[in-house]
Amino acid sequence: MKHTISILLENRFGAFDRVANLFSGKGFNLHSITIGETEIKDVMRMTIVTSGNDQIVEQVLKQLNRLVDTLKVVDLSDHARTERELALISINYQKGTLEELKNICDIFRGKVVDINNKSIMMEITGPPAKINAAVNVLMPFGIKEMARTGTVALKRGEQINIQKNEV
Amino acid sequence: MKHTISILLENRFGAFDRVANLFSGKGFNLHSITIGETEIKDVMRMTIVTSGNDQIVEQVLKQLNRLVDTLKVVDLSDHARTERELALISINYQKGTLEELKNICDIFRGKVVDINNKSIMMEITGPPAKINAAVNVLMPFGIKEMARTGTVALKRGEQINIQKNEV
Repeated sequence: MKHTISILLENRFGAFDRVANLFSGKGFNLHSITIGETEIKDVMRMTIVTSGNDQIVEQVLKQLNRLVDTLKVVDLSDHARTERELALISINYQKGTLEELKNICDIFRGKVVDINNKSIMMEITGPPAKINAAVNVLMPFGIKEMARTGTVALKRGEQINIQKNEV
Repeated sequence: MKHTISILLENRFGAFDRVANLFSGKGFNLHSITIGETEIKDVMRMTIVTSGNDQIVEQVLKQLNRLVDTLKVVDLSDHARTERELALISINYQKGTLEELKNICDIFRGKVVDINNKSIMMEITGPPAKINAAVNVLMPFGIKEMARTGTVALKRGEQINIQKNEV
């Protein structure tokens, strides 16, 4: 099963290493990793998408919780969540294909962020499955280069049910 | 100086560890790390934004080049490039502040991706400096949670100068 693990981590020397080392030698398939700043100074959020045996994932979560650098560890797979990813995709074009590429970009609500005489660069964002779909459609045109951020995710806010007579 | 380093990496067991270990103990300030899929099967692109002594960065680049897992290492700081980042930001709101938050989201060309009775979640993309600006504007409202992907970057295509008489 695929797991999306969110870790709040102190931006301390070697913290990143210590987390990476936990995942090594465990037979994990790492799909993506992102580490970015948070709303708190010197605290980073690491989001790891991995697939592996559920028991092993649980074991790693426990070990992560025990690291001095981790402030919070959540397996978001258990929660309603919003997942997003960003991709920069550079595609070769010839005369006649540019309009088609522009249309595909529009369909995926992407943005053209660079163009020259030979290639066009798009920025596409969305859930990882949407990025996969865009890559599949663009592949036949000749993808020159691609950089995907990997997934970030946040728990969705709890929906509070308001009684009808309160409205 | 800030460096944006792009590494093409085989998605091999422990590759991620070996790269992480190179950066440890070197006194680097890691600003962000992303690892995502590329256009090539089993090849990942790692983008590291770091600041540190230029000489040490050069030394690490050489060591990265020597790792069996790395296929290509580029310091994009030397090139014209497009940098992008995505942030999911969840903000508390009270009666009366929702319209203001919606306006801020529009100004940053963001998208509202979740809302409940207490909080609103936005997706904002752009160069890292734009995300910083959005965070600064949203901070006074009370950021509940935030997940930033960290920076991805691609070299801009070379601009080929066409002679005037060729057009």
